[in-house]
Amino acid sequence: MLSDIEITQRSKLKHIREIAQDLGIPERYLLPYGHYKAKVDVNYMKDLKERPDGKLILVTATTPTPAGEGKTTTTVGLTQALVKLGKKAMLCLREPSLGPCFGVKGGAAGGGYSQVLPMEEINLHFTGDIHAVETAHNLLAALLDNHLHQGNPLKIDPREITWRRAMDMNERALRNVVIGLGGRANGVPRESGFDITVASEVMAILCLSNDLADLKERLSKVVVGYDENGNMITAGNLKAHGAMAALLKEAINPNLVQTIEHVPAFVHGGPFANIAHGTNSIIATKMALKLRDYAVVEAGFASDLGAEKFFDIVCRFAGLSPSAVVLVTTVRALKHHGGVKKEDLSKENLEALSRGLENLKAHLDILSNFGIPVVVALNKFNSDTDGEIEMVMKATEERGARIALSEVWEKGGEGGIDLARKVLEATKEEKSYKPLYELDLPLTEKIRTIATKVYGAEDVEYSSQALKTIKNLEEKGFGGLPVCMAKTQLSISDDPQKLGRPKGYKLTVREVRLSAGAGFVVAICGNIMTMPGLPKKPAAEFIDIDEEGNITGLF
Amino acid sequence: MLSDIEITQRSKLKHIREIAQDLGIPERYLLPYGHYKAKVDVNYMKDLKERPDGKLILVTATTPTPAGEGKTTTTVGLTQALVKLGKKAMLCLREPSLGPCFGVKGGAAGGGYSQVLPMEEINLHFTGDIHAVETAHNLLAALLDNHLHQGNPLKIDPREITWRRAMDMNERALRNVVIGLGGRANGVPRESGFDITVASEVMAILCLSNDLADLKERLSKVVVGYDENGNMITAGNLKAHGAMAALLKEAINPNLVQTIEHVPAFVHGGPFANIAHGTNSIIATKMALKLRDYAVVEAGFASDLGAEKFFDIVCRFAGLSPSAVVLVTTVRALKHHGGVKKEDLSKENLEALSRGLENLKAHLDILSNFGIPVVVALNKFNSDTDGEIEMVMKATEERGARIALSEVWEKGGEGGIDLARKVLEATKEEKSYKPLYELDLPLTEKIRTIATKVYGAEDVEYSSQALKTIKNLEEKGFGGLPVCMAKTQLSISDDPQKLGRPKGYKLTVREVRLSAGAGFVVAICGNIMTMPGLPKKPAAEFIDIDEEGNITGLF
Repeated sequence: MLSDIEITQRSKLKHIREIAQDLGIPERYLLPYGHYKAKVDVNYMKDLKERPDGKLILVTATTPTPAGEGKTTTTVGLTQALVKLGKKAMLCLREPSLGPCFGVKGGAAGGGYSQVLPMEEINLHFTGDIHAVETAHNLLAALLDNHLHQGNPLKIDPREITWRRAMDMNERALRNVVIGLGGRANGVPRESGFDITVASEVMAILCLSNDLADLKERLSKVVVGYDENGNMITAGNLKAHGAMAALLKEAINPNLVQTIEHVPAFVHGGPFANIAHGTNSIIATKMALKLRDYAVVEAGFASDLGAEKFFDIVCRFAGLSPSAVVLVTTVRALKHHGGVKKEDLSKENLEALSRGLENLKAHLDILSNFGIPVVVALNKFNSDTDGEIEMVMKATEERGARIALSEVWEKGGEGGIDLARKVLEATKEEKSYKPLYELDLPLTEKIRTIATKVYGAEDVEYSSQALKTIKNLEEKGFGGLPVCMAKTQLSISDDPQKLGRPKGYKLTVREVRLSAGAGFVVAICGNIMTMPGLPKKPAAEFIDIDEEGNITGLF
Repeated sequence: MLSDIEITQRSKLKHIREIAQDLGIPERYLLPYGHYKAKVDVNYMKDLKERPDGKLILVTATTPTPAGEGKTTTTVGLTQALVKLGKKAMLCLREPSLGPCFGVKGGAAGGGYSQVLPMEEINLHFTGDIHAVETAHNLLAALLDNHLHQGNPLKIDPREITWRRAMDMNERALRNVVIGLGGRANGVPRESGFDITVASEVMAILCLSNDLADLKERLSKVVVGYDENGNMITAGNLKAHGAMAALLKEAINPNLVQTIEHVPAFVHGGPFANIAHGTNSIIATKMALKLRDYAVVEAGFASDLGAEKFFDIVCRFAGLSPSAVVLVTTVRALKHHGGVKKEDLSKENLEALSRGLENLKAHLDILSNFGIPVVVALNKFNSDTDGEIEMVMKATEERGARIALSEVWEKGGEGGIDLARKVLEATKEEKSYKPLYELDLPLTEKIRTIATKVYGAEDVEYSSQALKTIKNLEEKGFGGLPVCMAKTQLSISDDPQKLGRPKGYKLTVREVRLSAGAGFVVAICGNIMTMPGLPKKPAAEFIDIDEEGNITGLF
């Protein structure tokens, strides 16, 4: 069997101009980056204004496991299948971070015969968006520390600075640092640290902005810390937002690439799915809806995190209304939730599968909150037995949801025809999306609603610090923002050990943070890693390039 | 009078495909980045192998002053003038760093009617090369700290790590930091710091490599520190060079843009001119020589630094042999060297000018070491009087060098016709380049040769640490490398206060460093700033972008 990178290196790509022509994008709006990737000028949206929107299909998944569910692969494969059925469709994905690429995970562009290409370039730098976000983030940090150094006229309290620095790298050693050492010529000493760039609020802002003016406005609102009297200090106070927005001038334009079957794809923006909302840019999604009759988008992690945030934050900010949701699952993942060890996942185990199905049912219940028809995509692995597949099919249909077997990794679009047909059926239902909670509820009420209706918790507990922050935020006028929950992706609860469908527990909110520019309040349950580390044998050691420029070891 | 950014925003650019077509670059080798910039695949060089080389013209300057000499502007203007005379010519420049852009200096792409365009994009991210260099640099740092964290099998001494991190930002507060804090899950605590990306050895390597294989080989040799027994630890030992080279896959391709008069320009690579060699990539220069009959390249700072390194390091590594040198000077700069204060530079002062001419004469003498004909370009300012201009002309001609008045800022190529004619004359002389010193001399002899023949010093003094390092490097087999001097650019000596033509002093070498990947030994005289700081009123505060994407405040 060929590896992903071997499959991609043997694929013949179309010139990106051809892909853009098929979409009807005028050449003046197409900004090619080499032969196989391009940016589409965001100003094109003004020309498209009067065009009707296509239908939006959201792809989410059951709770992630070490076995992998193939959510991106399904997103690509489903879109390829829609095109095989004669539909005008395209997809939207997030941009991969370099950090995991050099760590353990490898690239993030789908797999097998359902990938977006050119895989190596998408994984390494791509069109530079993440670098631009990082530079804008770090410019704000530099201006802030320079302000302290140059006499600190705003009287910023160096102990109350919340803005850290960003680097698109797995960098354990930069999580906690002391900066400004070496005497008075070298800044003001203080504690700080680095987060991986995709965890930056600037990335969330890029992805939640409707246009350049909105982007700049949001950047100006970013809170970097507090002054000696406890007043918030913003990027606007530091006059940083203009230069930050200028740095993002190119990054705001969606990136156009193609799948292995030449289906157009926007790969644009990559916010974290815990500390932020975890979906590609609103601008890319909106443009895709103008260009095609169907736009398929993927949300990070499982439905408790990615889909909930998509519905309650992204759809609300962007005025989007999805027509169907695809819930990706695998027999292996469900067996894992039924208690099977990794080494035994390839053996048939109907009893464990039956237990694990509770996880699937929980996600179906979560999605039922939002009023949109759901199609389960059962992503087939070679080790799945007929009995196991049948059990998942039956259980899903008993809950009134559609289900289709998906073989898009091995067969490309052809392997997703049944799934695509069922998704098309679902989009014909006359249902409309509703958010889970109203914005005018108090912050604690919004959190309680998510905790009970989505996470299945009985109640919510808060640290005294979290309650104090909530009080402060409501007093300062931020009570009306939506809540972005930050919790483990490995369980529907806040405890990564709780598999299946956790019940009868209390969710603990330990910390609350404001992302005033992104426009949400982050409620943190448990430890949230905003800077990953490298493993003992980093993937970087196996990456190589030959003298012709062929890259190996990236998977 | 229009500002540089206003002039550029009113200019009508040709599509970069047209510029490439004029150069005869086949479309398969042209990798466009938007409509007005492109990379040219380095593999194109294989096709060009048999083609004869054009003539190489090096642009350098007298000692820099706060008044500015217009070296980049002259490089652009001269090339435009050559084209006006019917010659096939192009130019090569360095890529500007973002740091100074947000600090005081503004952009770096020439000025007036002798600029390379699109100026905003060249100054902000451009094609991402500097970000790629930074990422490769920081990946090596991450792998190194991860090695310490994961048990340190190579027994690297954390106190003897020389590899720092890089950020393309003026970041005083990151000069000296302590990393790895926060307990055992977060790395090994140690002192470190950040340099601005253009000071990274990775940038020097990118610019000194002849191809991708050479690049990877050089990366593997980078020394990051020492083990407990004093043995060198390299990037190769950490298995970092393959992934680092993969990260530079696109960055190695030269960037093609155009001047305001549609003359082709490579803007590629931007190493510091003190800690490194300060000229654009060898690959860009070699490609330019294959594509045109004349290639004009600029070296950083004045002839004592930029030109000397160009002749002794770049020409040697690349097998280049320049046909003429242009020495840019201004009446104002020379008056500064004659002791005139900044506020009085606009008043005629023949006496001070006469004293300041010693600086010009010193640079003519420096250049005479290398055996190439010199043309002085007197870059005209409005405040220059006829008497002053005549004095400079006469003094230059008395020394046997050609001189021409240049008005390229105001008039573009038309203002450089006389200069271009004299440069063409010079290139017809049958002279050939010779380096200043032979590589097989001991390191101290090489340093003494540069100090006495170029800097006019009587002798060289060393700190005991510097002598110890030299001994160690010669024992380890690095004695045969060329020397890259790091000293102030504000004087021909190592003391920034010494204007004009310093004599009768001893040069002090305080520290010696190895850049084993770049392939030179750095001799440091005085404090060399490898991470600048922001001023009290950073330029970033004045940079803005409107909702159409038009950038203001970048100059």
